[in-house]
Amino acid sequence: MVISLEEMGKKARQSAFELAQTPTSLKNAVLNKMADALIEKEEEILTQNRLDLEKASEMPQNFTDRLTLDHDRILGMAEGLRQVASLPDPIGNEDSAWVNHAGLQIAKRRIPLGVVGMIYEARPNVTVDAAGLCFKSGNAVILRGGKEALRTNVKLCEILRTVVASSGLDENAVQIIQETSHEIANQFMQLTDYLDVLIPRGSARLIKAVVNNAKVPVIETGAGNCHLYVDKDAEFDMAEKIVVNAKCQRPSVCNAAEKLLIHEDVAEKFLPRVAQALEERHVELRGDERACAILGSRCRPATVEDWDTEYNDYILTIGIVDSLDEAILHINQHSTHHSESIITENYRASQRFLNEIDSACVYVNASTRFTDGFEFGFGAEIGIATQKLHARGPMGLNELTTIKYVIRGDGQVRE
Amino acid sequence: MVISLEEMGKKARQSAFELAQTPTSLKNAVLNKMADALIEKEEEILTQNRLDLEKASEMPQNFTDRLTLDHDRILGMAEGLRQVASLPDPIGNEDSAWVNHAGLQIAKRRIPLGVVGMIYEARPNVTVDAAGLCFKSGNAVILRGGKEALRTNVKLCEILRTVVASSGLDENAVQIIQETSHEIANQFMQLTDYLDVLIPRGSARLIKAVVNNAKVPVIETGAGNCHLYVDKDAEFDMAEKIVVNAKCQRPSVCNAAEKLLIHEDVAEKFLPRVAQALEERHVELRGDERACAILGSRCRPATVEDWDTEYNDYILTIGIVDSLDEAILHINQHSTHHSESIITENYRASQRFLNEIDSACVYVNASTRFTDGFEFGFGAEIGIATQKLHARGPMGLNELTTIKYVIRGDGQVRE
Repeated sequence: MVISLEEMGKKARQSAFELAQTPTSLKNAVLNKMADALIEKEEEILTQNRLDLEKASEMPQNFTDRLTLDHDRILGMAEGLRQVASLPDPIGNEDSAWVNHAGLQIAKRRIPLGVVGMIYEARPNVTVDAAGLCFKSGNAVILRGGKEALRTNVKLCEILRTVVASSGLDENAVQIIQETSHEIANQFMQLTDYLDVLIPRGSARLIKAVVNNAKVPVIETGAGNCHLYVDKDAEFDMAEKIVVNAKCQRPSVCNAAEKLLIHEDVAEKFLPRVAQALEERHVELRGDERACAILGSRCRPATVEDWDTEYNDYILTIGIVDSLDEAILHINQHSTHHSESIITENYRASQRFLNEIDSACVYVNASTRFTDGFEFGFGAEIGIATQKLHARGPMGLNELTTIKYVIRGDGQVRE
Repeated sequence: MVISLEEMGKKARQSAFELAQTPTSLKNAVLNKMADALIEKEEEILTQNRLDLEKASEMPQNFTDRLTLDHDRILGMAEGLRQVASLPDPIGNEDSAWVNHAGLQIAKRRIPLGVVGMIYEARPNVTVDAAGLCFKSGNAVILRGGKEALRTNVKLCEILRTVVASSGLDENAVQIIQETSHEIANQFMQLTDYLDVLIPRGSARLIKAVVNNAKVPVIETGAGNCHLYVDKDAEFDMAEKIVVNAKCQRPSVCNAAEKLLIHEDVAEKFLPRVAQALEERHVELRGDERACAILGSRCRPATVEDWDTEYNDYILTIGIVDSLDEAILHINQHSTHHSESIITENYRASQRFLNEIDSACVYVNASTRFTDGFEFGFGAEIGIATQKLHARGPMGLNELTTIKYVIRGDGQVRE
């Protein structure tokens, strides 16, 4: 039986009340048992996954790749849950505490957000990741995955819920929407009475749709039109290594570089050598007029759209700029405010880039590929926020919390 | 000439870029000059204010009260700007910094939000307060005040802009929308390309309209259906003092108490005495069946709506509860998650109330009237957030900032 969204919302609220008061030790025990259960139920999961894959046989291969589970991927999900169990619990931490003029003891305490809504696409591991992170941070979660992964997701969810219930907690800590229509997705985005936040994960198209349709507050994640800027004072070996890494190490992800800007003073020298390194890795090069003039037929003229496109593929668009100012202006206009990096040995240029680029993560002399909760040392990641409210950059457990002020008095009144 | 919202947005973005790099000393100097200019131009301001008041002569008196400026109120606005100048500047602070496994130096740095949109009602002082706080925190602001205060607000804005320009900065740090139609307000709420956040300040109706219509992220402020709970172990003198203060000291504001819950064990004794103290201050009492049974004709039966209504007036609705559990359940269902207080001498009850009530500010043995940026010691307040994302409770300068990660490497790439 499919229950209504409102019903799910009510159940989630109730569970969230319980979860907010659940001690860390019990939450960790449940997470470890969830990991065990996934491994134990591998065959059941794979059976449902095969049914999903059969229905999705006409989809492109990179899609079915993402959808496919196997032994190692299930082990990976279980390992992820164990890692989350091992992380410090942010709930109850007091970021600051002080006494005000009237003698009130005021403390700013971390508490769960309450009920988190997740909207995502084909990867079934998001089901387990999101459920684990929300559970650890004391939030109830309502999941809405891609319809192609529905059977797999429902099975995963069922396993997690069984573990929660068998631990004496409300199984509605984790719920999944089983109806796959767009209407339901839209209703979900409007469920302001029950959802505290909506986190979309997936393609730029999905995120745009959520931002446009949601009434629930959204944390925008993911879209990454990331830029590298090779300054006139760049060290060429380092610059080449970083460009190749940021573009080629894993082009399908949001922190991969999509654009390369080069200072005109070094373009003649640096561009041909980096182009060769990229071509060896089968990267298609596009460029502005000046880049094309240097590279000739190796580079195809960039269109207006290129500058704003996240390829997630072996494509790089290259522009030559007159100055650091032009680079900063261009990046602030075209970036998705995810991650940008300058390669330079010049102190002043590095400072200006760090100060003036308006992105979640701004680098000097490093690959943008480091924008990641694990690389940052958060031990987990529910997404990478590209907006400015609440959270920005890689979001770990702490970003799934809010605060309340806890105030202890002994009879104080306002004069 | 009235310029388009998009034009204003572009100008605000440009100014925000400059403001983000403006040193604290210059920002403070400008704020102090703004204060001087308001005092100097008092006559010009009052002239415009009189024109607004003439047009608003048919409005109720509490409305025209809020709209009216005089010498003292102008001094008050100027003093507010000087106070903001004296506060520490959050911009550039690094909340934390660490080195990751690859040797990258990662710092979490406070930066301005960018462009703030303010939507508010009759009080012209919000124009100056908001402009001052946004300016200090490095944000450009676009203001949209109530149409009845338009002439006053435009004059105030003109004075502030002149000071900004004469200090060598872009005057578009402060802009005001001069067109008063609802269509423009709606367009403003959809200006996602240029606004980073929208902060509504005013009535519950205004805030609801903004939350419903905005595509720009909103920080919900203000609505306060605040509860007091007098526990069975309350000290009666303290309880009476707190109830009277929370209800009567300034009933028109959002942190005033609107509901009183009393444990049944003490209701017979406590209710008549607190009722008398409230009646002496002309508070109208409404109550559930049991409260009415105790108070008789002094108390009028509460309707279903009463429990969810913020009166902002000399009205208090009283309920008798069987237990702390019932009190917590009732409050979490009916409160606007602003401020609630328990009066008790019982340790366990105090702990449970602090832990289980889901509101921005939760008190033991103190008046809810302390929920305020100044009382908290923030030195300023742009509003009181009643939602959970980004900011919760009184918002000062820090809540007008976001973060970016600044990452310094020496050639690191992902393996």
